[in-house]
Amino acid sequence: MSQPYNRIYNFSAGPCTLPVEVLEEAKEDLLNYKGTGMSVMEMSHRSKAYEGIIATAEADLRTLLSVPDNYKVLFLQGGASQQFATIPMSFLPQGKTADYVITGAWGKKALESANIYGKANVVFDAKADNYNNVPDLGSLSYTPGAAYVHFTTNETIQGVQFKSDPSLNSTVVCDMSSDILSRPVDVSKYALIYAGAQKNMGPAGATVVIIRDDLLATGPDGLPPVFDYKVQVENGSMFNTPPCWSIYMCGLVYKYLLRNGGLEGARKRNEEKANVLYNAIDNSHGFFKGHAKGDCRSTMNVTFTLPDEELTKTFIKETEAAGLDGLKGHRSVGGCRASIYNAFPLEGAEALASAMQEFAAKHGKALV
Amino acid sequence: MSQPYNRIYNFSAGPCTLPVEVLEEAKEDLLNYKGTGMSVMEMSHRSKAYEGIIATAEADLRTLLSVPDNYKVLFLQGGASQQFATIPMSFLPQGKTADYVITGAWGKKALESANIYGKANVVFDAKADNYNNVPDLGSLSYTPGAAYVHFTTNETIQGVQFKSDPSLNSTVVCDMSSDILSRPVDVSKYALIYAGAQKNMGPAGATVVIIRDDLLATGPDGLPPVFDYKVQVENGSMFNTPPCWSIYMCGLVYKYLLRNGGLEGARKRNEEKANVLYNAIDNSHGFFKGHAKGDCRSTMNVTFTLPDEELTKTFIKETEAAGLDGLKGHRSVGGCRASIYNAFPLEGAEALASAMQEFAAKHGKALV
Repeated sequence: MSQPYNRIYNFSAGPCTLPVEVLEEAKEDLLNYKGTGMSVMEMSHRSKAYEGIIATAEADLRTLLSVPDNYKVLFLQGGASQQFATIPMSFLPQGKTADYVITGAWGKKALESANIYGKANVVFDAKADNYNNVPDLGSLSYTPGAAYVHFTTNETIQGVQFKSDPSLNSTVVCDMSSDILSRPVDVSKYALIYAGAQKNMGPAGATVVIIRDDLLATGPDGLPPVFDYKVQVENGSMFNTPPCWSIYMCGLVYKYLLRNGGLEGARKRNEEKANVLYNAIDNSHGFFKGHAKGDCRSTMNVTFTLPDEELTKTFIKETEAAGLDGLKGHRSVGGCRASIYNAFPLEGAEALASAMQEFAAKHGKALV
Repeated sequence: MSQPYNRIYNFSAGPCTLPVEVLEEAKEDLLNYKGTGMSVMEMSHRSKAYEGIIATAEADLRTLLSVPDNYKVLFLQGGASQQFATIPMSFLPQGKTADYVITGAWGKKALESANIYGKANVVFDAKADNYNNVPDLGSLSYTPGAAYVHFTTNETIQGVQFKSDPSLNSTVVCDMSSDILSRPVDVSKYALIYAGAQKNMGPAGATVVIIRDDLLATGPDGLPPVFDYKVQVENGSMFNTPPCWSIYMCGLVYKYLLRNGGLEGARKRNEEKANVLYNAIDNSHGFFKGHAKGDCRSTMNVTFTLPDEELTKTFIKETEAAGLDGLKGHRSVGGCRASIYNAFPLEGAEALASAMQEFAAKHGKALV
């Protein structure tokens, strides 16, 4: 339990843990970045130094995800919530329908904003099961000629995750906010991928958008320039001042991932961590119950309940005192949520698994 | 010229210099903020620690600006450019007109987005003078019953600034991005003030909005929640994940300002710095020419030209080599621009004034 800098295990659903070596690097350069005589926070976004930072970040992100050449990469502001609005604003014209697959809270929010701009059709909604499963995307009935199909790869509140890229003959738009860079992805299966930075990439404030040229070209004219993907592409994400520091930190994280086996390395580490926790659930003789069905259990957010409210409170209190922070689940699912994004260490998952085992051993017998 | 940490004098128009002691504080707490066991960058925005950070930032900003109780304070994303769009989206209903006062490049951009959402009327435009002056706001002819009147207190590219708060019997909306917190302001004269963080407050990524309750109440229903001021107010700027780090840094800057005489102290320091540079211009026997007319010369951005393009290039090259960075003016004005926001040190202005004096002495004679 002795971590460097007296840090604790931070199971927050986001913003969340960043790699220690990335934070050390940021700290080292905080008052004078690589001899420029200023902090990255103080740098003109039009300066040579900052242009190098954002260009390198884009290049490294392209390398990590093997982004094909016919896709543009943007670093914007506003988070996924803003994309929920600007996507239908741009790509859902009157007379068309967009199909939405709802597997949890974030998909619902995306749908809410789509309904404001045009016609959205729900092709799947797991509400009746309290969002504990995901569908086979290939077997759903879509609207013929739909403007696009939208889904969410990982739902943080429910802890459900699609396990493979879809193969659809349509314009696939995807919110990858909570599992981007956690595993390899075939970008060519998507027309638009978007993701807030604050889970696997960096601090809150930056939003990555990866958009295919042919979809980009269909964007309408006459939008406010700040919301116009074409304008942002033409200006290299600098139509207005970008969230410079968040992008810089994302860039440091990309380098960290490249040094550590790329996305295959990330996948391996994430699966190992998730297995430690799912095993703790499955071996607890029913004391802990996983929320998500087995085949869609998230490697990012492990959701589980305890036998009752009292035990849940006690467990959260005791683990928090032991330096395991942020385990309280969302009220819609209850119980606990252990968010174990890319930078979360294996040792933290093992510490939680031990705590679960001890707690179940102590309190389980009374229930039998 | 020996600055701590080998830093240089950064005359960037924004993002720009931050106080050294603020950067030192951020560095100190970078891996473990005040014993929380994590960086502010890694903190859940719903955590007690972060709630304290944003509440303190708001309280300190209210103290600095003496914000009356019938105003709400928001920390949003998207910069002023996004406000250019969300303000007319929210407060310019069909059938109404908004009046725009154009004193430079930023006012023009605000107008551009207003034209997309509704009817905007230009009540003043200094284009014919290449934006070297500002009008007396009390003497313009406004649209009767206008939805609002919009102006920009300080134009960074042209270096023109309004010197006092307006007294208008109308809904005054104001872009204060480049001079907020540089001097005391009577907030009660405005219905809405907005400002990107990256000049006088902190790193790019956060946008402050100060909005009067009665204007807030007129916002329409049915907007995408991320663009809805009412929704953001109801959620304490946390409808979606806020730009946590930028807000934290703004908070440190607010504390710094409070420790240093508040906004009266800031005004005094800013006027002193600006006087050093305007005196250098005025005492150069016409070698340097100020762009802005005397009564509206900005204390934030000092714009001036040299006798010709060749001398301008030489001057910028020589000053850059001497650690005076970012002096190249915008192409629409030419010459030089010295941006000397709140955190820019007096010594830097004095160093530039000396360099100007020497340069004029060396090159001026040949021109006579």
